[in-house]
Parts: sequence; structure tokens; C-alpha cells
Amino acid sequence: MMRKLFVLALISTSLSASVPLTTVAEEIASPGTDDRASPVFGVTLPPGYRDWQFISVAHEAGNNNDIRGILGNDIAMKALKEGTLPFPDGSIIVRLAYEYVPSERNNAIFGREQSFVAGAPTNVQIEVKDSKRYASTGGWGYGQFENGKANPSLKIVNSCFACHAKLPAAADFVFTTFSK
Amino acid sequence: MMRKLFVLALISTSLSASVPLTTVAEEIASPGTDDRASPVFGVTLPPGYRDWQFISVAHEAGNNNDIRGILGNDIAMKALKEGTLPFPDGSIIVRLAYEYVPSERNNAIFGREQSFVAGAPTNVQIEVKDSKRYASTGGWGYGQFENGKANPSLKIVNSCFACHAKLPAAADFVFTTFSK
Repeated sequence: MMRKLFVLALISTSLSASVPLTTVAEEIASPGTDDRASPVFGVTLPPGYRDWQFISVAHEAGNNNDIRGILGNDIAMKALKEGTLPFPDGSIIVRLAYEYVPSERNNAIFGREQSFVAGAPTNVQIEVKDSKRYASTGGWGYGQFENGKANPSLKIVNSCFACHAKLPAAADFVFTTFSK
Repeated sequence: MMRKLFVLALISTSLSASVPLTTVAEEIASPGTDDRASPVFGVTLPPGYRDWQFISVAHEAGNNNDIRGILGNDIAMKALKEGTLPFPDGSIIVRLAYEYVPSERNNAIFGREQSFVAGAPTNVQIEVKDSKRYASTGGWGYGQFENGKANPSLKIVNSCFACHAKLPAAADFVFTTFSK
């Protein structure tokens, strides 16, 4: 593994001396992963996730500039509805993000600039609870997917837990709460 | 009906001369409705609607200032996924709106003012396709609900179709399209 990284770093450096070696190393996917599974965690898109139940919605402005729906499988929904966190093993939460698009059609109908809708999908993020397999990341494994394929970036997938770990303990590392 | 409205208008006028008569008439619920069914259309909250599949999300700024998830029953979802509009009879679409709330917790974690989440529920709007029963309103019946109870306002319920009717014909009077 180290040899492979070193060779790639040399190639990259020869192409552009300004690329830091750490970035090159960070962006190389784990060995053995394919385009269906996330690096590090090996999380895949669960079959039928688009049909899962609705947890809540959010809008992230700034760099993301998206609007998102958050869905859960039956195990996650039961825990959310009953308020029995931490989530049991087998819980899966899916976050579907879309471009945040002002709707000119709706604004014309309403006579006001007020309507923002979901445009093209940007990415799907998945978190899977498996307290043994993912013991070192609070029991959660992560993955990000674009057009059905796992994003191979180690930097992205490692940033998931880094951020989720900043949540209060009662949240069990999950940003979204159930909207009634 | 006219006699009843006239009497109520007189009562209202005697209480407050500044209340316009039209408003009094508009705000009287249809006779025979209860707090479970919308006026005019008699639409009720369908059992289990909160567990329905996810169609899309939106944010309405301005007076609404909400963020919303839109769900559909199986008949509506089939038509949306297969793109076979107009919707068949039996289609039901539910729009769950929530207060649009900046998340101070998330912003602190992200180090940026970017995160808006769903706060307390504001209202639920339902549209039911029944081409015979609701022939005069494009085949759709409407209702708005707060805390599980139908809003009795004729003005509100009549404003639904007035607005939906402005959509292009291909939309079959439905604002939301399916987000993949």
C-alpha cells in the first residue's frame, strides 16, 4: 500500500509540483473497494432506499447549496418515532440532496419570489449502524454516492464521522430528528 | 344557506362595524363538516399518511417561511415514478410543512451559517384525486389540517384550486414533481 501511494505521489508531483503529497494520499481509495462500496466503511446503497419513510427535510446553504430529504429504514424509523436512541444495529439513514433551485414557475404563480424546490440530485449519503463493525466511529459506517456510484474519496468519507462526532451524545451521531 | 349567511353577517356587523361582510361569508365553514373533514371538499387526513413514500422537498420563503416534505400514497407514487400523468383516481398527495428554522447547533458544528432545518409542524395539506366527485376543480379535492384538525376556512380551502389551476396542463394541477 505504501509503495503504491509513493509511486502515485511521484507521478502527481511530476505533473504538478504544487500538489501536496498528503492530499494525494488522502484521495486514494482503500484497496479492494469497488464503485458500489464506500472506502473505509464498505457501505453500499441499500436496495429500495428511495421508497423508505420520511424522517425530515433540511436546506444547507453555502458551498452545499442543496435541499435534502432524509429517509430511514424500518429499524431506524421505529427508533426515531419511539425516541429510543441510541439506534439499534441495522438502522440505516439515507440523506438525498438536490440542487437548491428557485422555482420561476411557482414564483410567477404566487406573484412573489418565495419558492425553492429540489433540482437535479447532487449526492446521496448513507449511514449504517453496526456497533461492532464500526466501533471506532461511534457504531456508524458512512458512504457518499453520486449517480449510484460510491465516491472513492477518503477525504470525503473520513469527514463524515469527524463532523457527526461533534453532535451531543444524545443524538447518537445523527444530525436529523424525526419531524412529526 | 344564504339566509344563514345573512343572519351571521348581521350579527358580525353588530359586533364590529369594521368587519367586511364578504370576509364573514368566506370564513364560514360548509354545513355538515366536522373538524376531521375539510370544508367544500370533505377531505380527511388519510390513515398512515406519515409513513408514505417521499416525493420531494421545497422551501417557501415569505409569509409561509416553511420547509416541506411532500409524500404520496402508492397510487400517486406509481404515476409519479412512471411519469404517467394525469394521476389516476385514488391518488393522494400530502404536503407536510414545518417552520423554517436556522440550526444554531449545526452552524456551530460546520463553522458557517448555512443550515436550515424543520421546526414545529405548521400545517398539512392534502389533495385527493377523484375525477367525478371533484370534477369542477380539475378532479382534485383539497384540505388543510393543523394539529390533526381540518381548517374550517372556506377562504383557505378555495385558494388551493385557484392557485393549482395556474399550473401548466401537463402538471395535472400538482406543483411537485418526483425527485429521484
